[in-house]
Amino acid sequence: MTEKMSYNGENIKQPNVGWFFSRKYITENDAYLFDKQIATICANYGKIGFSFITYPIGGIYRYNCQINKNRNARPIHLPDLQMGIQFWQKYVNCALSSWIDPDSPDEWIADFSAQEFKKEMDYARYLGINNVLIELKHSESPKLAKLINNFLDSSNCELSFWILLPTNSYLFKNEDCWLVWRNFRTLCNNCNHLFVGLAFTEDLGDEFASYKQIQRWKAEPLSFIRIDYSLFVRGNGSELKLTDVHSKLLKNLFLNNQCQHLLLSSLNYDELNELVFEEMLNGSLDCIKENNCKRVIEEEFLDEYMDVLQIPLQPLSNSLDSSVYNTFEQDKPKYLQYQKAIKTALEDLLLQNFENIILIILGAGRGPLVNASLSAIAEARKTFKYQKEFSVKIYAVEKNPNAIISLQYCNEERWKNSVSIIQSDMRSLTLFLESKEIEKPDIIISELLGSFGDNELCPECLDGVNNILKENTICIPSSYRNFLTPIQSLRLYQNIRDLKSNNKCNRVNEIKECSELSDHLYVVCLGQFCYLDKTKHCFEFLHPNLTNSSNFREASLNFRIPKNSELMGFAAHFEVVLYKNIILSTHPERHTENLFSWFPGLFPLRKLLFCANECNILFNIKRKFDKEKVWYEWFIEYEENGELIKSELQNENGESQSMNLS
Amino acid sequence: MTEKMSYNGENIKQPNVGWFFSRKYITENDAYLFDKQIATICANYGKIGFSFITYPIGGIYRYNCQINKNRNARPIHLPDLQMGIQFWQKYVNCALSSWIDPDSPDEWIADFSAQEFKKEMDYARYLGINNVLIELKHSESPKLAKLINNFLDSSNCELSFWILLPTNSYLFKNEDCWLVWRNFRTLCNNCNHLFVGLAFTEDLGDEFASYKQIQRWKAEPLSFIRIDYSLFVRGNGSELKLTDVHSKLLKNLFLNNQCQHLLLSSLNYDELNELVFEEMLNGSLDCIKENNCKRVIEEEFLDEYMDVLQIPLQPLSNSLDSSVYNTFEQDKPKYLQYQKAIKTALEDLLLQNFENIILIILGAGRGPLVNASLSAIAEARKTFKYQKEFSVKIYAVEKNPNAIISLQYCNEERWKNSVSIIQSDMRSLTLFLESKEIEKPDIIISELLGSFGDNELCPECLDGVNNILKENTICIPSSYRNFLTPIQSLRLYQNIRDLKSNNKCNRVNEIKECSELSDHLYVVCLGQFCYLDKTKHCFEFLHPNLTNSSNFREASLNFRIPKNSELMGFAAHFEVVLYKNIILSTHPERHTENLFSWFPGLFPLRKLLFCANECNILFNIKRKFDKEKVWYEWFIEYEENGELIKSELQNENGESQSMNLS
Repeated sequence: MTEKMSYNGENIKQPNVGWFFSRKYITENDAYLFDKQIATICANYGKIGFSFITYPIGGIYRYNCQINKNRNARPIHLPDLQMGIQFWQKYVNCALSSWIDPDSPDEWIADFSAQEFKKEMDYARYLGINNVLIELKHSESPKLAKLINNFLDSSNCELSFWILLPTNSYLFKNEDCWLVWRNFRTLCNNCNHLFVGLAFTEDLGDEFASYKQIQRWKAEPLSFIRIDYSLFVRGNGSELKLTDVHSKLLKNLFLNNQCQHLLLSSLNYDELNELVFEEMLNGSLDCIKENNCKRVIEEEFLDEYMDVLQIPLQPLSNSLDSSVYNTFEQDKPKYLQYQKAIKTALEDLLLQNFENIILIILGAGRGPLVNASLSAIAEARKTFKYQKEFSVKIYAVEKNPNAIISLQYCNEERWKNSVSIIQSDMRSLTLFLESKEIEKPDIIISELLGSFGDNELCPECLDGVNNILKENTICIPSSYRNFLTPIQSLRLYQNIRDLKSNNKCNRVNEIKECSELSDHLYVVCLGQFCYLDKTKHCFEFLHPNLTNSSNFREASLNFRIPKNSELMGFAAHFEVVLYKNIILSTHPERHTENLFSWFPGLFPLRKLLFCANECNILFNIKRKFDKEKVWYEWFIEYEENGELIKSELQNENGESQSMNLS
Repeated sequence: MTEKMSYNGENIKQPNVGWFFSRKYITENDAYLFDKQIATICANYGKIGFSFITYPIGGIYRYNCQINKNRNARPIHLPDLQMGIQFWQKYVNCALSSWIDPDSPDEWIADFSAQEFKKEMDYARYLGINNVLIELKHSESPKLAKLINNFLDSSNCELSFWILLPTNSYLFKNEDCWLVWRNFRTLCNNCNHLFVGLAFTEDLGDEFASYKQIQRWKAEPLSFIRIDYSLFVRGNGSELKLTDVHSKLLKNLFLNNQCQHLLLSSLNYDELNELVFEEMLNGSLDCIKENNCKRVIEEEFLDEYMDVLQIPLQPLSNSLDSSVYNTFEQDKPKYLQYQKAIKTALEDLLLQNFENIILIILGAGRGPLVNASLSAIAEARKTFKYQKEFSVKIYAVEKNPNAIISLQYCNEERWKNSVSIIQSDMRSLTLFLESKEIEKPDIIISELLGSFGDNELCPECLDGVNNILKENTICIPSSYRNFLTPIQSLRLYQNIRDLKSNNKCNRVNEIKECSELSDHLYVVCLGQFCYLDKTKHCFEFLHPNLTNSSNFREASLNFRIPKNSELMGFAAHFEVVLYKNIILSTHPERHTENLFSWFPGLFPLRKLLFCANECNILFNIKRKFDKEKVWYEWFIEYEENGELIKSELQNENGESQSMNLS
């Protein structure tokens, strides 16, 4: 019967919309009967198109009761046996009784609330409910936070708390609404069982008029938005639709069908009919539809990677697997740019009347750059309409013995044995030059860049071939720069903190046992985050580096962090010049279209830094090395109450993370 | 193209049958070409009905080569790029080159083999292969074991080893084949990445003629059986079928479609045609079909529980959840027996001319025993054809406040408010008797038994109601006994050892941090195991225990363990007499049909005990208590080389596990 709930649910990827129950105008007796009709209620709302309901955990009968100093409330009354156990978990979220207020200034209310909080939460656990909604009532709720912490510590269940805040600040002594939430979750140890919801109000707080301040909610686990009937108006065609201002805010905040929910309600009009429910549903869905069309495809592909921390590859010390090569080879935009760069370089050489061109691919993997080179050569022949006679000799250098087998196969089956395959570390090519197994190249091509550009040791690898270069050898790439941007993100902070327990990092066992989890450069598809300032340039490397100038680098980047925000770390990007004006970029403002090989990097801080006022943050980073390894060290500086604060130096001497030179 | 492999695969739940490649009679050149045809090979075998192939990881070209003292072997040649990466993982298992023999008495072969082992395993990891098959060549293979251990320690991959042994012992100096495997996996630290396979041989070793000895393989991760063309004969209808002796053995060993695989081969007849392949496939499937019909339903239901360790419930100190009650309430055979017992007891009272019968249900939960009682009363009325006037007053006592809500709901909606619901611990009922909220019962009914009978503190709970009983109160249940059986099981040993890392235990965090993982009574659906002796009786409890005789118990049970077996622990069962001859039993030899509320219990040993010779094992167990808790302590005694050995006392003073009295 309640299966009808899934009518608009699983198959069609529509946002999850729930109905929020708060029937004020109902007699005691009716309420008691109502609380035994959950199956019918679910079925009815399911038929309309809702996918769940939010119902008082103690029943309406109890939810609406008046408490008094005798400390009597009506008992919990929402019998489990009225509906199959699986339907409770699927279709019902619960809300704490509205009179429960552990932080009430009246001591007896606070005490009684604490006791009844435990009863209701115990009953929610008994029912197997997934989410319990609690409305924040004060700008500070330390006792509620403590009750939540105690519940999560003592119970072994997967239950989540949905904390609801209004979008105005009357309740909160005019405090910023985000700040109230931030303070509350901080009291709850930024626990990942806590989610936030916004109850749209008729008049919105100032923060919801500022694009920048709205962005902060994208860095929070904003799991639902409650919209009341009172915020709907009749449109021209007399259809029910959200007011323009609420519609705009909803479009801005509702980004993710899978993680976010809409919660419709009618707080002051109890007796709406089904037609109105349906109109409200359609009105709110219309409003977010266009948002979601854009995002669904992206989400499907990226969903499994979103906010999942990865350890950067170390291709120098670990051989890559076939599947890793396979993934990277799918990146068409990347190899088209390479092809273009190689073609342009070839043409430049041909214009200088080169006839026998030597091309060495350094780190050929399974051959994508060989393919790009062969295509570039074919194109160059066409450009010159076959009027220039020239030959190109391709050497493919690769140190991974397994990838050599793939290269040999391609050579036989696809490249007509035209490529010379050399199994060697590129830093040992002098030997091959001496034995005349290779020749000095006119062009060298490599793809050794990581998410932060140099972090897979491209500078060191390419410096290692200096001995075999001519004075005028063209190096593709010829230079690269990296960039940093301060970000806010609760999720990423949680994921790093919980790394060892939650296994949310592939190759997590490569993290050293004793290391600070925050002292790592991670690779991560940024999902729940926002930028706190503009992106700034950090390091640069030029090739060929025939003078062997040092690859030590340091930089101090100054960022301006807005008031009422929380700095989590710095997102890392890069931009590479392959040849002349042919570039690849992951810079957030000018990302090469459809390039997907690189997720951003992330330099986390050890602690979240709350900025109550606008402030300057200086990010200091060094790229250091010794004989065995290369590593980054970083810390921040800022002023607090007129005092200069330096954070602890992270990853000192590469103790937590380093890139091995062998 | 290779998608055809799934033709007989995913949807139809048919055993996974693979083809084992070992083409001896092939030229060097043909082998080289063959190794580049994997996609076609997969497609062809898929069309016939095979679901995977086992192919040499280095290619046939290399597999067949002769090695010599110059330490040259043909290079690995099985190019990854010839087939989509996902098909390798789905359709191809690999076999190590047959000449690799790290334990060869020839030192150069051993050294060279170690080196080539690493190359081939590195290539398997590169390809992303799930399983690598290795044929054991010696009765002892310590160097191979070390190579496997090193590979698993250093690589971070999910790859499994399939260790193949023949079913005769020519290779193994006439040692028991199971023993050779047991010694080998012991050298590999009984690692759970190791699986065993049996290659059926024409003449079978003696151990395969003994039912008892065959049982040992059911306690091992026997993941595949290889059957060669030479073991097939033509039947009367000229169909290809396994010889009777091999058919019988296969039926005995092949128990699980999901975890076990068949591997067909033709080691000495290279050029069979597709028709013969299909005949072999059908011949072997026919043979195991009837086995599987029996087991499929059972597997589907039990699959997620099989060999998964559970911590016994503690209903006295933890309130149960709705979903737990819901599961237990599904057990129809159990409540039908209760109904029968209650009815018989009622009839006995009626024959004694009782008119107003008082019935108290102790620990009513959500009411299944109330339902059983109401049905029993209705039946009793029918039996006496309504000729006897009698009334039955039912009291339902329950301490879980959440379940009280369910009871009240049932009382209103289903029981016409005929039941008196008392929220109380049953051990505090004297108060209710004094205040006349209850009356002294003529019958008390409870269902407080755990997998080992008394382990959920039924004795203590029922002793706690002695004060409210009449002299002749009927107690349902009236007695229970528990039983122990020694078992062999590698899987359960592994699961306990890896408990904290692999999360294969629900409620694992209830295990005390510092406790010995083996010093727990677990509850587990026994899957990969075998019994090593008959089941023996341990403790007994009688109710009502009006003399308050102690619930301390001790027992020493003597078991006879067969030669060449490995004792892992003791399976625990119980049998309860509800009333007169109405019983429920989980005793392995007389389990009540379709009863599913109780999986067996398990008392593990700290170490696996290998028994080279038949021996007597004395299992000593005590049930002890103090004011707060009850616990079991256990150890074993046996003779070794004429010396009496005592194992360490497990769970001394309940340090690892105890049942709380409040």
